[in-house]
Amino acid sequence: MLVEAGLMLLPAAVGLICGERSSALIFAGTACLTALAGGLLMLIRPAGSNIYAREGFVITGLSWIMLSLFGSLPFIISGQIPNFFDAFFETVSGFTTTGSSILTEVESLDSAMMFWRSFTHWIGGMGILVFGMIILPLGGKRSMHLLRAESPGPSSSKLVPKMRDTAKILYGIYMVMSVILLILLLAGGMSLYDSLINVFGTAGTGGFSNHGASIAYYDSDYFEIVIGIFMLLFGVNFNLYYLVLLKRLGTALRSEELRCYFGIVAFAVVTIAVNINSLYGNFRQAVLDSFFSVSSVITTTGFATADFDQWPQYSRILLVILMFVGACAGSTGGGLKVSRVMLLFRTIKRGMRRMIHPRSVESIRFEGRIAEEETLSACLIYFAVYCLIMISCILVVSLDDQSFETTVTAVIACVNNIGPGLGAVGPAGNFADFSALSKLVLSLGMLAGRLELFPILLLFAPSTWRQGMLYRR
Amino acid sequence: MLVEAGLMLLPAAVGLICGERSSALIFAGTACLTALAGGLLMLIRPAGSNIYAREGFVITGLSWIMLSLFGSLPFIISGQIPNFFDAFFETVSGFTTTGSSILTEVESLDSAMMFWRSFTHWIGGMGILVFGMIILPLGGKRSMHLLRAESPGPSSSKLVPKMRDTAKILYGIYMVMSVILLILLLAGGMSLYDSLINVFGTAGTGGFSNHGASIAYYDSDYFEIVIGIFMLLFGVNFNLYYLVLLKRLGTALRSEELRCYFGIVAFAVVTIAVNINSLYGNFRQAVLDSFFSVSSVITTTGFATADFDQWPQYSRILLVILMFVGACAGSTGGGLKVSRVMLLFRTIKRGMRRMIHPRSVESIRFEGRIAEEETLSACLIYFAVYCLIMISCILVVSLDDQSFETTVTAVIACVNNIGPGLGAVGPAGNFADFSALSKLVLSLGMLAGRLELFPILLLFAPSTWRQGMLYRR
Repeated sequence: MLVEAGLMLLPAAVGLICGERSSALIFAGTACLTALAGGLLMLIRPAGSNIYAREGFVITGLSWIMLSLFGSLPFIISGQIPNFFDAFFETVSGFTTTGSSILTEVESLDSAMMFWRSFTHWIGGMGILVFGMIILPLGGKRSMHLLRAESPGPSSSKLVPKMRDTAKILYGIYMVMSVILLILLLAGGMSLYDSLINVFGTAGTGGFSNHGASIAYYDSDYFEIVIGIFMLLFGVNFNLYYLVLLKRLGTALRSEELRCYFGIVAFAVVTIAVNINSLYGNFRQAVLDSFFSVSSVITTTGFATADFDQWPQYSRILLVILMFVGACAGSTGGGLKVSRVMLLFRTIKRGMRRMIHPRSVESIRFEGRIAEEETLSACLIYFAVYCLIMISCILVVSLDDQSFETTVTAVIACVNNIGPGLGAVGPAGNFADFSALSKLVLSLGMLAGRLELFPILLLFAPSTWRQGMLYRR
Repeated sequence: MLVEAGLMLLPAAVGLICGERSSALIFAGTACLTALAGGLLMLIRPAGSNIYAREGFVITGLSWIMLSLFGSLPFIISGQIPNFFDAFFETVSGFTTTGSSILTEVESLDSAMMFWRSFTHWIGGMGILVFGMIILPLGGKRSMHLLRAESPGPSSSKLVPKMRDTAKILYGIYMVMSVILLILLLAGGMSLYDSLINVFGTAGTGGFSNHGASIAYYDSDYFEIVIGIFMLLFGVNFNLYYLVLLKRLGTALRSEELRCYFGIVAFAVVTIAVNINSLYGNFRQAVLDSFFSVSSVITTTGFATADFDQWPQYSRILLVILMFVGACAGSTGGGLKVSRVMLLFRTIKRGMRRMIHPRSVESIRFEGRIAEEETLSACLIYFAVYCLIMISCILVVSLDDQSFETTVTAVIACVNNIGPGLGAVGPAGNFADFSALSKLVLSLGMLAGRLELFPILLLFAPSTWRQGMLYRR
């Protein structure tokens, strides 16, 4: 929270520069309040200080909720998003790099608020890189305490032995890639402010835009291509960039996950382009919009250059399937993650072979190594929990009596941290019409999806709150 | 096929009685043809005669396809369903006890054809009882050959040591329950013909009706209640009825699956009744229609007394979720099966506890016994394969460019062997508008769902067809 307070000074500065004095004041005030709360929390010293798996999960879950609560204060205080549930939803959507919005008119926010809204994406992206490094919920390792340096998702490989160094390297890569994108956008003639907003949305694979029309607003093939490519790049496992820095490009390119990721993208871009071609009558534009939408959806960003809600059913449904697949492990993207999907497929295939040859013993190879049996069963459990959470959310959101596709895809888009779904929550729509209950459930869904399910799920387990359960064995 | 030929003489007789000579002739002719084909197949003697798991699966998958192909001949020859894909879909839908129809006007069939169409449900229900007893795809036992007496679904318990005796007992129970239902329907004033049709649809948990309005046609609370209750009863594990016959009612009532099944039904009936009450303005009728629809959907029958497609979103979505749950293992119903869902839940809960206490060793109890680890992992794999098959089918069917909810629920309704879905395939709709490709894919989906996935899936594995692979190790 002390870090968050520090980061809030940036939108305060933006407010000053843009002459929005009241917003600047609100951010400065909220920064003080957040710092104060953080400082007070530091005074509380727990009796025990051993941090085990349960504590690690609970700390993570509660931290993200606290950051979102304090992060939503400027919206509420300024009255630009007066409703608490709306402001909380919007902030969670920011930090979790989802990009779903309850704003019917994005442009209604002033520059400072808009900056903060998008800046949460960028912070969230960094947070996920650390989170992924520290907690690996489904790595399948028996000891799983807070301070373990691992990459997110099912594949695990330490970059360098010390966590602090690893974090610095990941942040360095994240920062450099963001700056390169910023320069490319500025070079294309985009204003500094817009460039920053779009860098935040792209790097965090978030998707908040400062224009209702999203990236379509710029009506520029150059921006469409640049942002489309950078979304894909931010969806790649950051470990691979480190390998490139170590001049081990060959090893990076041999990554099975990377190949599968680009394979899926290629398949989707081509088939969707063919599917929507008749709508466009211009194959070049069809390919371009197909590429941008596929890149935006599989990386779980959610920027739009075309309203894919209007596309034929095959394209719409393939995009929804890509929402589930998600980006690579160890990236800023969400979803199931390509490597987890690959492990699921291989486990399924082995399961079928075992039905035929019941006595066979066969291990599964992934990225050149034999996958642990625990990792495989953890993947299967993860998938089942994931479906269960989604089904529960859908049932609650259905109480709002929105259409079937709006209800279902709203949940899919939130839990997978995409942003837009189909129907009323399509690229041209928003989440404003949902009830407070649905917004709360969708907010928790975004957090659950972002934090690999268990940190949020554990908050609902009665045993977590039993007297003395935390900080004790 | 010899048995099928014999069974075809029944609709031939119905044709004679109802004065439909040409249909009677067609059935007699098809019976001869089927018998001839069956006889010819008996002449082929394979070199090896050992039947292993792979052969068992392939025999099962191919048998159901062959039965459906020959079963569809009367529809095609008579011209009453002239298109091959339509006739095949309708027959598969019958044998798999799904109840999805491509007929826009059910009443267009003559009495003999209608009888055969519904009779396939009853035959399919018997077939599934045997199938479940013989092949248990996911029991997790290491040896899994064709001739093993087990109940379907994940729970396994031999009724009596010899398979033949078990089959006789199951058939006896099936027959007696069918006769009781027949008597109750006749007692309510339903014609013999209609009573038979509805007994076939109820006992097989199929759902074909001889009226476009399904059970709503009779506009009778008595029939609604009687059929509603019997659908539920045919969705109960038949082993429990045998326990009742053995005067072990207490043991039967202690079944965890049974209690969970009725618990889900009670929850769904009450919440849906409250949800639809404002539509009805008559709570009694709301409860009645809610009960009938829940019973129809969870048992995967598909009869309708109300068009639940018109209900509020909560009710529609809860019904779709129930489609996944399905009936009890060892019944004529489809879906995932209640016991499999329960095992999934328990495995998930244990997985979560393991994340917190990584070193804990904990076994899962089910129905008073410790579930084998292999059964649990088989359940997880089953669930993943199940989702995968559904997603693949949805993608193919999406090429028809029907609405999102029609596309998605058509696949859910077929793979789970329900019958109606939502939208264009709702209780008031049908599957006529799909392309031949979609009808074929949906037919295979019905077969896959009915035969617990693997017998159909294996038909698509290239290794199955490699020279000499069958009948050899």
